[in-house]
Amino acid sequence: MSYKVKPIDINASHVSVIMNAEDANGLGLSRTDRVKVMARDRSIVAILDSTRTIVEPGEVAIFKNTYDSLALKEGDQVKIFPTEKPKSVEYIKKKMMGDELSTKEINLIIKDISDNNLSDIELSAYVTAIMIRDMNMREVEDLTRAMVESGTRLDFDNKPIFDFHSVGGVPGNKITLIIVPIVAAAGLLIPKTSSRAISSACGTADILEAICRVDLSIEEIKSQTESIGGTIAWGGAVNIAPADDIIIHAEYPLGIDPYPQVLASVMAKKVAGGAKFLVMDIPIGEESKVRDKEYGRRYARDFIDLGHRFGIKVECAITYGDQPVGNAIGPTLEIKEALECLEGHDGPKSLLSKSLSLAGIILEMGSVALPGQGAQVAKRILDSGAALKKFREIIKAQGGDGEISSSKIMLGQFYEDILAPQDGYIHRIFNRRIVKIVRAAGSPFEKGAGLYLYGKQGDKIEKGKPIFRIYSDSQSKLNTAKAVALEYPPLDIEGMLLERIPNIHTI
Amino acid sequence: MSYKVKPIDINASHVSVIMNAEDANGLGLSRTDRVKVMARDRSIVAILDSTRTIVEPGEVAIFKNTYDSLALKEGDQVKIFPTEKPKSVEYIKKKMMGDELSTKEINLIIKDISDNNLSDIELSAYVTAIMIRDMNMREVEDLTRAMVESGTRLDFDNKPIFDFHSVGGVPGNKITLIIVPIVAAAGLLIPKTSSRAISSACGTADILEAICRVDLSIEEIKSQTESIGGTIAWGGAVNIAPADDIIIHAEYPLGIDPYPQVLASVMAKKVAGGAKFLVMDIPIGEESKVRDKEYGRRYARDFIDLGHRFGIKVECAITYGDQPVGNAIGPTLEIKEALECLEGHDGPKSLLSKSLSLAGIILEMGSVALPGQGAQVAKRILDSGAALKKFREIIKAQGGDGEISSSKIMLGQFYEDILAPQDGYIHRIFNRRIVKIVRAAGSPFEKGAGLYLYGKQGDKIEKGKPIFRIYSDSQSKLNTAKAVALEYPPLDIEGMLLERIPNIHTI
Repeated sequence: MSYKVKPIDINASHVSVIMNAEDANGLGLSRTDRVKVMARDRSIVAILDSTRTIVEPGEVAIFKNTYDSLALKEGDQVKIFPTEKPKSVEYIKKKMMGDELSTKEINLIIKDISDNNLSDIELSAYVTAIMIRDMNMREVEDLTRAMVESGTRLDFDNKPIFDFHSVGGVPGNKITLIIVPIVAAAGLLIPKTSSRAISSACGTADILEAICRVDLSIEEIKSQTESIGGTIAWGGAVNIAPADDIIIHAEYPLGIDPYPQVLASVMAKKVAGGAKFLVMDIPIGEESKVRDKEYGRRYARDFIDLGHRFGIKVECAITYGDQPVGNAIGPTLEIKEALECLEGHDGPKSLLSKSLSLAGIILEMGSVALPGQGAQVAKRILDSGAALKKFREIIKAQGGDGEISSSKIMLGQFYEDILAPQDGYIHRIFNRRIVKIVRAAGSPFEKGAGLYLYGKQGDKIEKGKPIFRIYSDSQSKLNTAKAVALEYPPLDIEGMLLERIPNIHTI
Repeated sequence: MSYKVKPIDINASHVSVIMNAEDANGLGLSRTDRVKVMARDRSIVAILDSTRTIVEPGEVAIFKNTYDSLALKEGDQVKIFPTEKPKSVEYIKKKMMGDELSTKEINLIIKDISDNNLSDIELSAYVTAIMIRDMNMREVEDLTRAMVESGTRLDFDNKPIFDFHSVGGVPGNKITLIIVPIVAAAGLLIPKTSSRAISSACGTADILEAICRVDLSIEEIKSQTESIGGTIAWGGAVNIAPADDIIIHAEYPLGIDPYPQVLASVMAKKVAGGAKFLVMDIPIGEESKVRDKEYGRRYARDFIDLGHRFGIKVECAITYGDQPVGNAIGPTLEIKEALECLEGHDGPKSLLSKSLSLAGIILEMGSVALPGQGAQVAKRILDSGAALKKFREIIKAQGGDGEISSSKIMLGQFYEDILAPQDGYIHRIFNRRIVKIVRAAGSPFEKGAGLYLYGKQGDKIEKGKPIFRIYSDSQSKLNTAKAVALEYPPLDIEGMLLERIPNIHTI
């Protein structure tokens, strides 16, 4: 049956179709039943909601974002059919039971995810099942391939493409802004795509969009990489392994990262991005995605194995993730710190050494540095000013200021220093509390928001002297962030006698 | 901050609050974020949707069903706060990891479920995790108690209350309509509540509402039980263990019944219903919830143990579930068949013997029959006409015709016989296909819809003679149901050479 479709201007979190209750009864359907909505040339699976007044019998309403994704227009008709649960739900149940999935079964699960055929309930069962039951490497390979095929691919005509990836979890990890210019300045091609924040304070894409475009198209990434050697683009703007975004939608609220899914999601983006050489940064820390070295080594081994299955040479670096990289966390703060590093200022050692080590591995893989000399070559490129020049070229190519410098970066105009309540040493830094404070200050949406650490682990602090500064673009968010910082102190100071109140919140 | 609230007349499947995009940005919130909505004296956790036109800044819209459940009125204001994920999500993750949950953790999970604090994603992670990880009996006991406390309880001032329950899965299982009158006629109190169909063709509540009310209140159940000995009410009309309905909302689409949840959900309803003596019917069959006797015995042992923990004496009967009980499936067809049995017609043996056996166990538990003689006593009560009289009393008390008889029951006016394509014996009956056909015919909403089997397993059939009849209230649904029956033949006939097409659908 055909229904005239009306958009409702709601950007909704769920894919629903709203039917007149009479029509729904006529089809034997109730609220929360699954239906297939067929438009002229697209279709979608939606959950049924009902109304007695919003639409008349013979009409249906659809939320704006779904209406747009079906490419509907005023006066269009859609067909609606009751639909059964997708076959892939049976395969998710098979994984629940602990069985190995076949290639065909994995393909269908990813196809149903990509086609938005799975409800939140089914999607969550998938991530929970693979979280508990895991997958073997054959299944992970199939999962990776299915995810690659869920989207488009970058094709560089077999040119050697270099890439790197950090397995999330460390605030202030702005190394992309330094590594990409060094690698590109060395003459290698590095079409880096980055993500936005999911649970972090800000992703590289959130950071860089403070000063230039990051929403490059596939064509722009290709041509910019071929002309100047690199991009720092937002991966979400291109349709690379789009199933990942849908899977994250279920993982994020649960705060889980199923091991086989992390492997497949990371590798699928690299395969689809055309990489032939890949460096993986695996930060280890109590509050990181990877808690200990043992687990980090398992990731490393499996990334290398998985890369091999797709013709990608992978090298892995297990890095220190127990405190932020550098001293600055937050969009413009991080750009400023990265620029200072590129400009040769005396910046934080953790940022410099991590960036040079990882860039060095890439340079060695690309044979522009001898084995063991990559970091030195990277340092020479940095010291020569070539990396700064390349960074400015990239910013300019992406629509920003080609003369950008650290002194031009505007930080949040509202800020406040937090003072040390007592003498002592910084014993520990709580990464997740820093994230919480920076987000409360407005990051990643408000670019001036952030936190600047005056000291890192082991540094001495003096009573009454500032230990960190919070920045914000508004006084009200500054106040909120400060309140969060007082409730959840991000630094543990040795030598202080503090009454500790047990914290029962998830932070 | 306060917002003026507007209802949107949509009976939605999801709890959302629709904010103007400007307001949402101002709070640093994005679509799909979780917020707490506080009305005058109630609050709810909702997912944020955004709009630019449906509401102005300073206003929010809420779907009608949520608006009603918050008891909102025109012009009311609500407060909206960003809210973190509920603590119980951490406990769900703990179960994912395979750990035992404490009493406190289980209580909080069930409280968050009952308060609608968990999203579909979180709820699905819960059912998937306990499906895979199971629970020990201490956890099941806590889960049961938490579920009892999620709702109201029936209180019969310590009178001995009898009850029984079938662990679903067999079409045509209309035994409640026969057992309750027998037990009540014997002078025992049996305030039976039944469910509506979830995955079955029709639940007892769906069946009985064809001839009387089933939506009795707690008070009505109590007073009717005390005056005439029994009820056959719809459990969903009373707020008994309401967490169960929310949990089913996640289990049903996945087609899973996590073992510890089945134990707890069944027992919670019996504890809250005031039962002291309980008979469990556990049908075993390839297409039943319980597949084999081994598994059935595990259920039996655990139901007995669990009942003991709540002072309920439980006896379990493992019954045959490989084909329908009786010959009739569908609301009015089942009432007619049950009435014929009560009236003493020569009905199907499977229905009669199952009803008498189970009623007999209850009579023995209630000491109105000597051990081993319960079924005989039940048969005497049936043969005497006392059960029929009691059934009519119950129907009359629930607003139906106190002179009801099988000849007055109206079946679907559209029907068609399906003929045997060949001579042979009925080798197997596929319960799920029968359910599929009966639902296609309009059950459980259309009361005349159903299927009548002219033969059961082992019966001889002759080419060209009817093997079953499909009933419907409309010609169109009859056609649909017939098409389903031809695509998924519900009977397997020995001696027939059929080309079998592999069936890849879930049926």
